[in-house]
Amino acid sequence: MQIGFLGGTGIEGKGLAIRFAASDVSVVIGSRSRERGVETADRYNTILGRKSIQGMSNQEMLACCDLIFLTVPPQQAVAAIQSVHDHFRKGQILIDVTVPMLFRQGRAEYVEQEGGISNSEALAKHLPEGVQLAAAFKTIPAHVLEDNAESLNCNIFVCSDSEEARGAVIELAGILPAVRPLDAGNLITARTLERMTVLAVNLNRKYKKKGARYRIEGL
Amino acid sequence: MQIGFLGGTGIEGKGLAIRFAASDVSVVIGSRSRERGVETADRYNTILGRKSIQGMSNQEMLACCDLIFLTVPPQQAVAAIQSVHDHFRKGQILIDVTVPMLFRQGRAEYVEQEGGISNSEALAKHLPEGVQLAAAFKTIPAHVLEDNAESLNCNIFVCSDSEEARGAVIELAGILPAVRPLDAGNLITARTLERMTVLAVNLNRKYKKKGARYRIEGL
Repeated sequence: MQIGFLGGTGIEGKGLAIRFAASDVSVVIGSRSRERGVETADRYNTILGRKSIQGMSNQEMLACCDLIFLTVPPQQAVAAIQSVHDHFRKGQILIDVTVPMLFRQGRAEYVEQEGGISNSEALAKHLPEGVQLAAAFKTIPAHVLEDNAESLNCNIFVCSDSEEARGAVIELAGILPAVRPLDAGNLITARTLERMTVLAVNLNRKYKKKGARYRIEGL
Repeated sequence: MQIGFLGGTGIEGKGLAIRFAASDVSVVIGSRSRERGVETADRYNTILGRKSIQGMSNQEMLACCDLIFLTVPPQQAVAAIQSVHDHFRKGQILIDVTVPMLFRQGRAEYVEQEGGISNSEALAKHLPEGVQLAAAFKTIPAHVLEDNAESLNCNIFVCSDSEEARGAVIELAGILPAVRPLDAGNLITARTLERMTVLAVNLNRKYKKKGARYRIEGL
C-alpha cells in the first residue's frame, strides 16, 4: 500500500507522514512543486533516519496512491482539490483532516459553514465522481502527531458516507501503534469531530497543555 | 449544599441524584406533583440504603436549592422552565443535561436547533434574569450514571457564559468519585457536547456496548 499527501509539505501532514513511514507504510509527499515535494520528503527521511518517504508533484502522487490525505490549511482545501480535479482516479479515497477554526480573544472558535454542514461535507461536493471522502484524524493535535516519540494513546474517529472508504481508513489508522480507530458513521459526524477539535484546542489553552486528545471509555 | 432536580422523577435524573446522595450531597427531587416527588425520593432511598434524598414539588425545591439540574426529556425542557419561571431566585444555577436526538434507521441523529445554536443556548433564553445556565454531564450515558457500582472514569465537560456558574458546577461535579470535570468555556461549547453525546450513542450501537463516554488524554 502506498499513501499520498495532497499538499503534504506543511505542518498538517508532517506528523502523519512520518508516523506512517515509521510503521513501514510507503509514503508519498505531494506538492504543487515537485521540487518542494522532494525537499520535504528528504527532510522527513532525515528525521526518520532512513530513506522511505518519496516526494512528487501532486499529480504524480495521485497517479500512484489510492489513499490520499488532504493536508493543507482548511481555507486552501477547495482550491487544492480543484487544482488536481482531473487527476483523481475512480476508487481513490481522500482523507480530510482539516478543521476550520479562528482565534479570537485567546480562544479557538469553530468556523461554521453555510447551512450548518461540516467542512468535510462542503469539500465532498468538489470531488470528482467515484472518489470518496472520509474524515479522520481531525481530533489529534498536530503537535502530538509530530512528536513521534509520544504514544498517541487515543481513539481515531473515522466517518464517511462510503462504507468501503470508512473500512479502508479504519484499517489504515489501525497500523499506527497505540491507536484504536472507531467507525463514527456517516460524513455528517464530521460536524461533531471538527467541533471536538476546537474543544481540544481550547482545553489545551485553558490547562496550559498541548496534547489534549480523545479516548472513549467503556467501549 | 443542597442540589435540586427540576423534573427529577425520570430516567434523566435518577443516576445523578443517587450518585450525589451517595457522595453525601443533600439531594431534592422536584416534580410537578409533590406526591410523585416524594415517591421517587423514597424509591431512590431504597436503592441507596438510607433516607437521604427528599421529594418535593418543583416550586418547593426551587425555594431551597441553589444548584438545580434540569432533568426532563429535551422536548419538555422549555415547558418545564416556563412552569416554574416565577419561582426561580437570583443567583441560582440551572444545569442542563439534556440532548435533543431522534432515532432513524437504527442511528441517533442530533436535532439541530434553529440558527445552529445548541439546545442549552435555546433554553438560556427562557430563564429569568439573574439565573445562570450551565451545560454539563451531557456526555455521560444515563445507563452508566444509573449503575452506581460502575466507576464513571471519565471527564465531565462544563460550559457556561457565567464564569461563576462554571466554577460552581465544576466544584459540584468534582465531588463524584473517578471524575475530572473540565472547564469547557462558554455556553457555545454545548453545540459540541450535545453532538458528542449523539456520537457516543452511535458508537454504543455500532460496537454493541452501553457505556461509551469521553476521557481526555494528555491534559
